[in-house]
Amino acid sequence: MEETRLADVVPVMRQEGLDAVALVPGANFRRIFGKDFHQNERPLVVLVTKAGKAVAVVPHLEFASFAKLDFKGEVFPWRDEQGFDAAFMAAGQAIGPLDRLGVEGQRMRVFEYLALARAFPGANLCDMHRPISQLRVVKRPGEVELLRRAIRVSEAALEATLAQVRVGQTETQIEGILLNELFAAGAEGLSFAPIVAAGSNCAQPHAKARPDYKVQPGDALLFDFGGTVQGYCADITRTVFIERVSDEDRAFYETVLAANERGRNAARPGLAAGDLDDLVLKVLETSPYGAFTRHKTGHGLGLDVHEDPYIMRGNTTPLQPGMVFTIEPGLYQLGKVGVRIEDDVVVTQDGVDVLTTFPRDLRIVAAAPR
Amino acid sequence: MEETRLADVVPVMRQEGLDAVALVPGANFRRIFGKDFHQNERPLVVLVTKAGKAVAVVPHLEFASFAKLDFKGEVFPWRDEQGFDAAFMAAGQAIGPLDRLGVEGQRMRVFEYLALARAFPGANLCDMHRPISQLRVVKRPGEVELLRRAIRVSEAALEATLAQVRVGQTETQIEGILLNELFAAGAEGLSFAPIVAAGSNCAQPHAKARPDYKVQPGDALLFDFGGTVQGYCADITRTVFIERVSDEDRAFYETVLAANERGRNAARPGLAAGDLDDLVLKVLETSPYGAFTRHKTGHGLGLDVHEDPYIMRGNTTPLQPGMVFTIEPGLYQLGKVGVRIEDDVVVTQDGVDVLTTFPRDLRIVAAAPR
Repeated sequence: MEETRLADVVPVMRQEGLDAVALVPGANFRRIFGKDFHQNERPLVVLVTKAGKAVAVVPHLEFASFAKLDFKGEVFPWRDEQGFDAAFMAAGQAIGPLDRLGVEGQRMRVFEYLALARAFPGANLCDMHRPISQLRVVKRPGEVELLRRAIRVSEAALEATLAQVRVGQTETQIEGILLNELFAAGAEGLSFAPIVAAGSNCAQPHAKARPDYKVQPGDALLFDFGGTVQGYCADITRTVFIERVSDEDRAFYETVLAANERGRNAARPGLAAGDLDDLVLKVLETSPYGAFTRHKTGHGLGLDVHEDPYIMRGNTTPLQPGMVFTIEPGLYQLGKVGVRIEDDVVVTQDGVDVLTTFPRDLRIVAAAPR
Repeated sequence: MEETRLADVVPVMRQEGLDAVALVPGANFRRIFGKDFHQNERPLVVLVTKAGKAVAVVPHLEFASFAKLDFKGEVFPWRDEQGFDAAFMAAGQAIGPLDRLGVEGQRMRVFEYLALARAFPGANLCDMHRPISQLRVVKRPGEVELLRRAIRVSEAALEATLAQVRVGQTETQIEGILLNELFAAGAEGLSFAPIVAAGSNCAQPHAKARPDYKVQPGDALLFDFGGTVQGYCADITRTVFIERVSDEDRAFYETVLAANERGRNAARPGLAAGDLDDLVLKVLETSPYGAFTRHKTGHGLGLDVHEDPYIMRGNTTPLQPGMVFTIEPGLYQLGKVGVRIEDDVVVTQDGVDVLTTFPRDLRIVAAAPR
């Protein structure tokens, strides 16, 4: 894949009036260095100043892996036996005093923040998660290709799972089948802990599979899940029905599908993310089920499963070619049923390419043999 | 499983001179409430004062799941469209001014910390990760049972994987087989991204599987991995050899095995964690391979894959019945070979129960048919 360099954060510093940026392992780190580090109990922080001077605080155990990053600055290693504070202080000495230091507020943890605060006593440490993450908001073709691969793997797993669904299985059993099929299909990891919900549990947007609920004829069965490939996250939701579907549930489903379709058709460069949400939500709100909306239309997707652009009313960010996000309208009738249909799209020159290809027509599974 | 309650953090506050503690989803949260919340881009924080008053800042989307926690305090929900700051401020008003507020520094992120700092303007926010986590350091029998289950699943996956290893497969292919077998065996998640390394890559304690290296006869092949069951993490390492093993590598392996055995035999209540590390490391250091030690003996294991007690020289914490930790000595000869053998143990009244049962005798896999 094409390379990004640490220098790519320099424009962010100029724009936000920062003297330096501190990065921790995560999506931005992975995009910049092309390699992933697991975030664990050992702080690893890379600092770069607006003048381009870079230093890193690195656990000794990660030293060999870190050496592969082609990092040009000075490295301050630390060992478990001594702790990390001295390495942070030495890094602070090497960089010198700072006024404004930007950090990734959604990713950096408090113990790293406090170590930086001690190492840069006069500095104002500001949450610059969003501005720094902008360097990932427009995807390169190689990134879209990895997202496509993650989605293919996930769709294959869903198809294989649906073939095994039977009346009487519990939600957790079906979740187990899905997990198994995901890794059999080639997923390298999970975008997030999958949601597998049936019946009234579908009415919880963030449901958890129940070990004690057996799926029944007529139940909706909702899957919201994704596998990763090289860190890129698929995120797909489909809602199917067990054995049969009532006319009422079918009308409910078709309403969500119409909103999903509206989103896929309306999304295009120049449209504000918030206006896209508005268009999709209006399909739901003007339907007989308007009272059952619960959430916005979608979120950006890439090395993070939730990232900019958020497809949410009030977000004036114009969509740009290369942005990737979800379109996932849902309706949730508490205690009864929920339906969500989620696709992943990439903005093109004049609309979007829909990366997810799994059919959206209402599907009956586990139909009794005739 | 037995219940823990939010009141269990009150003694921590007394001991550390805190007025309140703020908890975020993670291992402590899960142990206290018995339920897991995914940590995502939406802050969810529970605050409890030393007087026992509790409030929570909860994303509206998680509201129904949160309701299942049997949380007695006031809840301040927030919606994506409005952001979380007002909910934090209202929670701050409800609690009133604080002097010292303890937070989980290894788990809480900077944006949550900064929101708390705004909500409690006069408060000193201190990293109390370690003291708070002490409520998990002694495992209950139900927890040990879940660890056993996670370990069984992981061992079954390793056995199934070893049967499929062939000369010429790449490290990433073998990693794919392992992942597949883990979920087929019933893992609900991964303790961490597995390490699968062959040949000289074994000499990196935190190696990453290479897509371009094919395993060769005579290679060591190291697996360090674990599946989770209800959030409890297995962590097991075995090093096998492909087709054959040189006398030199066998001696290297036997040295590590002797250190592992020393650890399993020496661990007992009352022994300081650091003294156990010393006993194990001395086996390695006094061997002909003393120059090839790289890391401490082990770490605690539970809802976090790395937690107290750290089996590390200098740690004076006495081992107690119910503590669970790894014994994982290793030797790493850069550019040549590495061996690590890792077991999980629980401290009993007079020693340890070894939870891992996978054989440790040197094993040859992918042996050519005769």
